[in-house]
Formats: sequence, structure tokens, C-alpha cells
Amino acid sequence: MKSIYFTPGPSQLYPTVPNYFQKGLKGDIGSLSHRSSQFQEIYQSLTQGLQKLLNIPSDYHVFIVGSGTEAMERAVQNCVEKYSFHFINGSFSKRFYTTAQELGKKPASYEVPFGESFQFQEVVIPKQTELICFTHNETSTGVMIPVKEISAVAKKYPDMLIAVDIVSSAPYVDLAYQLLDVVFFSVQKGFGAPAGLGIMIVSPRAMKKAEKLVKKGISTGSYHGFLSLLKFATKFQTPETPPVLEMYVLDKVIEDMLETGIKKIRKETEEKAKLLYSFLDGSDFFAALVKEPPYRSQTVIVADVTKAKGDVGKILADKGLIVGSGYGETKKTHIRIANFPAHSIGDIKKLIRELKKI
Amino acid sequence: MKSIYFTPGPSQLYPTVPNYFQKGLKGDIGSLSHRSSQFQEIYQSLTQGLQKLLNIPSDYHVFIVGSGTEAMERAVQNCVEKYSFHFINGSFSKRFYTTAQELGKKPASYEVPFGESFQFQEVVIPKQTELICFTHNETSTGVMIPVKEISAVAKKYPDMLIAVDIVSSAPYVDLAYQLLDVVFFSVQKGFGAPAGLGIMIVSPRAMKKAEKLVKKGISTGSYHGFLSLLKFATKFQTPETPPVLEMYVLDKVIEDMLETGIKKIRKETEEKAKLLYSFLDGSDFFAALVKEPPYRSQTVIVADVTKAKGDVGKILADKGLIVGSGYGETKKTHIRIANFPAHSIGDIKKLIRELKKI
Repeated sequence: MKSIYFTPGPSQLYPTVPNYFQKGLKGDIGSLSHRSSQFQEIYQSLTQGLQKLLNIPSDYHVFIVGSGTEAMERAVQNCVEKYSFHFINGSFSKRFYTTAQELGKKPASYEVPFGESFQFQEVVIPKQTELICFTHNETSTGVMIPVKEISAVAKKYPDMLIAVDIVSSAPYVDLAYQLLDVVFFSVQKGFGAPAGLGIMIVSPRAMKKAEKLVKKGISTGSYHGFLSLLKFATKFQTPETPPVLEMYVLDKVIEDMLETGIKKIRKETEEKAKLLYSFLDGSDFFAALVKEPPYRSQTVIVADVTKAKGDVGKILADKGLIVGSGYGETKKTHIRIANFPAHSIGDIKKLIRELKKI
Repeated sequence: MKSIYFTPGPSQLYPTVPNYFQKGLKGDIGSLSHRSSQFQEIYQSLTQGLQKLLNIPSDYHVFIVGSGTEAMERAVQNCVEKYSFHFINGSFSKRFYTTAQELGKKPASYEVPFGESFQFQEVVIPKQTELICFTHNETSTGVMIPVKEISAVAKKYPDMLIAVDIVSSAPYVDLAYQLLDVVFFSVQKGFGAPAGLGIMIVSPRAMKKAEKLVKKGISTGSYHGFLSLLKFATKFQTPETPPVLEMYVLDKVIEDMLETGIKKIRKETEEKAKLLYSFLDGSDFFAALVKEPPYRSQTVIVADVTKAKGDVGKILADKGLIVGSGYGETKKTHIRIANFPAHSIGDIKKLIRELKKI
């Protein structure tokens, strides 16, 4: 029996991924020089495909890094001399804040209990803030910030840069990129590829900030500083040898998604999320952790399982359905269900059928 | 016709690699959580296999990063408050030096013309030096530093930490690890895997230095600071989601190499290198760039092709033999030939046959 992975990342592979690996290996992509024209074609196609899929302005840059976690580090190093500001409501938004601390910056934050969203009207962001950091979809708790709230904050503070972690909501999330400066994700979630590749989408405004920091003698990192990344990206190269085969596979997945159409992917994501939340709301044994519908994640659905009998994760695993455990302290009291493009409506219905039996 | 890649990295894949990818994908390794026990087993096996293969002391740590270039950054961040010292004789040793500059340190160096080795007796390393940086095998020029010279410097300066880049000489190089503190490589060269994974081997002494820096309030990076890497590595985990599938494949390649035996791999490498250098030394049209045998790289052989007629790289490529062009400014005047475990004696003989025809 082939298992279905509903884990929130690494997750179920996009159905065409194993085939693209095989094709890539056959075509010697694993031996391909990152200074060859064939590599430049892959990077260029990936950049343009992503710009089309996510509706990214053409003057924004697509940089290649190792992970979403690395992207947090590079965003802070390149956009913050001293002051970042963080909306914290879970482990990953907290990680973004901690990253700024570890890099010797002086981050401020607005923190609410894990699992809740923010009262955006209440927040006053300090004047000196250089970068406002959002975690669009808290993978640890399943809270998703409405895009219009992010856009409203960006408009209210037009002189500050905006970073948005969309690690577990891309490609579903439909952002107004022209208001944003550093947006990043990793490929092992919504894109259904094996882990090992992070993507950063960077605005011209963020590039200017990185230049300003370098001119002031502030280190923005070395090979993955924005200036170094851009110097190479303008010729569709990378400073170091990147995961070439992974980039090839991601490019192909993006092509597939363009063929399906992003509208359809988004609509199906919402339909599948609706099925899951309807089940949870009607169940006596399971409950959605996030109560208010506008803040419910469409891509990572977190359920309280304390009323259910037995080890829910194990019972499902025995049926070939692998869900994520709760994050950190909630390991045993929550389950997390990924709802990514690789998960079909049939997969979700099958999962709900098995949950009903518990 | 299937090509053979003699490029100095990415290079020819180790023959079993495509099969391990297929096996890994079939076994859902691409969906595997990096917090699962199955992942811990992979990382543990990889660590122990590498310790055995390279004869690394058991109290040294094996950390997972994204590339050799990243390893340079992390070595400097975690072992240097102000002063590193660099032996520079090519583009990659220069890159190590530049990394320290970009991170705001005050590196010093002993620089000789590209393509030459060092007069180690002449060098006086400044007292305040915290980290001495070697590039064991200059991939840009094919100069290899004799291991005994590195060991001698390490013994002469016992209070300084020693970093050794073995990016293009692992697993061939046989180091005295107990004298060294940060040794690193990437997998797309001697291990014959696709790019996207770097390995750092770190001594307890280097860990103490990183601790000291953190206590002094100096940033050692964030998620990939040595303290963060160790916190996770002690339970065979990583701070971020690493390239799990790549790690699985690397672990399998190491198992294969253990079965072949490192002695045999080293002996065959030297035999193949001897064939190439003998040909170059006897040729009227080609010449080894490095004249002195003790400094000739056994793994990346660089040849001057200015006397040969036509575009040597292209002529060979038409025969399915892909060699590397010269690095940087020597793009057209040199070719670089990788001699890794993935290259059989038959492959090397075939290449020499075609070179003879030119």
C-alpha cells in the first residue's frame, strides 16, 4: 500500500515529481555545470514561470537559497541595520524574530497566544522599524493572516520594508507583491518537491536597502548577500553551485501548475479546506484549533484530537494516511493536515472517511 | 551516446546514484519528515559512515549545510572574532579570504601566483590569528597542498584553529583530522552526487571557540551557527529542513565506497592521475599547468591547451567527453579534468586516446 503524506512539509510529492527526477538524471542534469547555458535556461525558465504563476512584477528578483529558514536570515541581514518588527503567533514567526536577535539586531514584536490571529487595528509599529515581518501561514498552529491585512499594514507604513514568509501557503496565497519586498518559500510544501531549495522574491526597494547597508560598512552576509545574489541572477546564475537537479524539477512542476492554472489550484484548495473544516466543526471528537473562519489556514489544517480515542496519528498511519503531529508541546494533542496541490479531493475525502471511523 | 562528465563539479555521477534516487523516491524519502526517526537513522548512518571512510575522530561533529561556499561562511562566523589567515593560490582560496572580508573580519593572507604552491618555511603567521584557512585542492588551477605541509603548520601553531577546504579532494585526501578543526566539502565532486549539500566536520575545539564568541555577544549566524547545528546534530536532526533525499543518496554512496574500500579508491585515483600526467608530460600539444609533481592535484588535473589546434573542449564534447574549461580568465587556454571515484580507469584511458588524436 502506497501511503499518502498529509504532513505539512516535507509532504506528498507532486504527482509528476518522481518522473521529472528520472528524466533529469537521464538527461545528465545532475552533472550539469552551474556555469553552462543549459543551467541558465533552467534558472530563467524557473524565474519567468514563477513570475507568471504568482503574478510577481517583472522587476522583482528570484533568488535561490537553501531553505525558508535561510531566507529569514538573508532577509534580516540585507534589510535591517537595527530594527525589525515581527508579528508572532506561533513557532515559525517566533523563529523569524529569534533569527533577528541571533544576528545582533534589535527586533520588536507584537505577540499573541499561539493559535490566535492579530488585532491589526491595535498595533502601533515603532517609527524606526526598517522591516516588518509577517508569517502568512503559521505552520505550527494553522493560522493564516488575511492578505488584505498584510496589504493594509504595508500601505499604512509605506517607508518600511515588508517581508512575508509564505513557506506553507505558496502557491495558494495571492499576494499584492508590489506592496512587498521580501517574500519567500521552500519547495517541500505547496510545490511538492523534496526539501533542499528555498526561493526568495526580492523587490528593487529591498535591493536599495542592501546597497545602503553595504555602503555603511554593515555586513549583509557573504555569497548570499542580496548584492552577490543579484550580480549572478542578472545572468541567471548563482554565486555557489546550487541544487541544479532540484531547480530543474521545480521548474517542471511550475510548468505543470501553469497548465492546470493557478485559479483552479486556488479554488480546489479552498474546496478541500472547506470539506475538512466542515467535518471538524460537525465532529464530537475532533475540533478545528482555529475558531474564526477568516483566520483558518486553507493549506495547513490543525485539529485538536484530545477527545478522540487512541493515537489518531498511528491509527491513520495504519491505513496509509500520514498526518503531521502537533508542533512542539502540542505534539500529542493536535494533528496537522496539509492541504497542498499534490493532495487530490479524493485524498482528502479518504482521510475524512477514516477520521469519521475513529 | 551517453556522455562522460570530467567536469570538476558538478561531475560524473557515482554509478549507483540514479538508482538510489529512484529507490529513495519509491520509498517516500522525498516526503519524509526531518523530525522522524527514519530521518535520524539516515543522518546517523551518514555520520558514522563518513567517520569510518575518512577516519574522523568520533568526538568530531558532522554538520549538514547547503554547499562548500556556505561552509566557508559558517567556518569564519563561528571561529573568528577578527583575524583569519589565508593561503591563497587560486579562485577558491581567494573566495575564502573574501568571505572573511565580507563578514567584517580582518583577514590576512599569504598569496602566491595562481597555479603555484607555497613556500611554507617562509610564512610567518601573525600571532593574533584565530583561524588558518587552507584550500587543500585549488579547483581553479589544479594545485594540491601536500597533507604533511598542512599538518606541519597545524603543529607549529597549536593555539590557532585550522580550516581545510577539501571540496574537490574528498574522499581521496587522507587528513590527520585530530590536528584540524573545520574540514568541509560538497557532494557534487568526489562523491558523485547532484549538488545541493555541503558537509562540515567540526572539532570540539572549534565548538568551544563558537561558544566563546556567542558569550562575548558576537553573532555566529542564526540557524547554522555551530551551537544551533550541534544542538540538533546530537539527536541526528538539523535546525531547518535539510535536503533529506540527497542525504539518503549520499549515505548510500558512502556505503558503496566503504565496500570498495578507501585504500583502493585512493590507489586507483593515483593510478588514473599518473596516466593523465604521463600523457601531458609526453605531449607536444598539451602541458600540465602544475610543473612540480608534489603539488600536482590527483583529483583535478589542469592542462594548458594553447598549443593544441581547435577548441579542445568542443572536440572532446563531440566524442561525448565533457571536460571543464579553464577557470575565469583561463577559460580558453586551460582545460580541467576531474579524476573522481566515479571515473573509471577505462574512462580516463578513453579520454587520453581522444586527446592524443587532437
